[in-house]
Amino acid sequence: MNVFIVYAHPEPRSFNGALLERSRAAFARLGDEVRVSDLYAMGFNPVPSGADFTDRSPADRLDYYAEQKRAYEAGTLADDIKAEIEKVAWCDLMILQFPLYWFSAPAILKGWIDRVFVPGFAFGGGAWYERGGLVGKRAMIATTMAAFPQMMAPDGINGLLEVNLWPIQNGVLAFCGFDVLAPFIANAVPYVDDARRARILDAYDNRLTGIAVERPLSFHRRDDFDARWKIKPDVEPRTVGHYFAGVPVDILGRLQG
Amino acid sequence: MNVFIVYAHPEPRSFNGALLERSRAAFARLGDEVRVSDLYAMGFNPVPSGADFTDRSPADRLDYYAEQKRAYEAGTLADDIKAEIEKVAWCDLMILQFPLYWFSAPAILKGWIDRVFVPGFAFGGGAWYERGGLVGKRAMIATTMAAFPQMMAPDGINGLLEVNLWPIQNGVLAFCGFDVLAPFIANAVPYVDDARRARILDAYDNRLTGIAVERPLSFHRRDDFDARWKIKPDVEPRTVGHYFAGVPVDILGRLQG
Repeated sequence: MNVFIVYAHPEPRSFNGALLERSRAAFARLGDEVRVSDLYAMGFNPVPSGADFTDRSPADRLDYYAEQKRAYEAGTLADDIKAEIEKVAWCDLMILQFPLYWFSAPAILKGWIDRVFVPGFAFGGGAWYERGGLVGKRAMIATTMAAFPQMMAPDGINGLLEVNLWPIQNGVLAFCGFDVLAPFIANAVPYVDDARRARILDAYDNRLTGIAVERPLSFHRRDDFDARWKIKPDVEPRTVGHYFAGVPVDILGRLQG
Repeated sequence: MNVFIVYAHPEPRSFNGALLERSRAAFARLGDEVRVSDLYAMGFNPVPSGADFTDRSPADRLDYYAEQKRAYEAGTLADDIKAEIEKVAWCDLMILQFPLYWFSAPAILKGWIDRVFVPGFAFGGGAWYERGGLVGKRAMIATTMAAFPQMMAPDGINGLLEVNLWPIQNGVLAFCGFDVLAPFIANAVPYVDDARRARILDAYDNRLTGIAVERPLSFHRRDDFDARWKIKPDVEPRTVGHYFAGVPVDILGRLQG
């Protein structure tokens, strides 16, 4: 397998750094090839701008999406974006590794997605989910958090983990066609001792050993929806984003009592 | 009211630019004071680093959260962070205005949250939700998207809007103590004509006219949860993050059929 790790932690001496090194060792042992984009170390720029297109007039009104699409086809994306696209295209498995900041990705990783997953490459007009640009590849979130597992549960204070991860797991990864693997979660990292950290590293190693054949999570397919993007009558809603079909939701989006 | 608009669009001639100007006019008419952080125009840096703390040794291992907490108390945060904290502290209403990128905030806004909502100011250890640092203030997302409304519904292809917005609305805003107002959503912006755009601007103006007295959305309180962060037996789960209590969820987080 070709494995691409997008890594977003500023401190190599962190537990994230230890997880990264452990994953490098595991994939080396398995005979897989690994490339890493260490976003902080690269000084990766997460802010989209007109400078992302080498053939654009700076005075023009910036329509970033339209420019992305045009420049991808014309081969005029900025070099740092092209380099990342090449790595995504190369890989069989992409791991997004990051500490959870505000129940989501750190800005440097969010901006990597914003700039690199360009239309024409990662998806197209209507070419979403099983018709997305990255079909046939696997992807996984590997994240550390301060929260304890019971806090990120349906009856926990911060709500179900999978609701928190929905915008990335469904909205980015499944949307572009990846087979999305269950996230690897290291909980309560600031509060555990070295023995517990060693066990988390072992668990990550074990998980990666079987990852090439692991069964992906189940997200809905584009073909589960009709021409008006509504779920077909014979399809059962089966994700945390769709489970509310049939549940009364008022105009503000609140569930009614 | 003191209104603070955090604005994240790179092009003033965009529809987001028009919404911003309309909101300035509406608040001026209402006699409210408005401050705007125009993140792209400011060249706001969304990437946390050791340079965010003026009294730290660059050679030290970076524990960003611990440094944020310490530097907030010591008054040694970088000036750009201090300036934003001062605006958040000043406001009665904070609007996060942005185009939806990948079902979430653009990186420049995510990084604004990552760097500005420091522990000690926005929240503390266990000082979350109604005990958060920003209690008494209101907050609202105002966002534009290419998606049509029926795509962001419980039975729509991308899942319920409120699941997509959960990490920001619950995980950032409610978590810090804000009263969270229903989001203002401008749908299908690339596909609508000028007349429809004018109606969206009017709708935004109307919405802002009543915003000081609008009833907030309902999120769970910290006191709805017990000492182990589990929902109390007499509390009914009532948000999209908690609705799954009692629904079988397997170890990978998938809903079972």
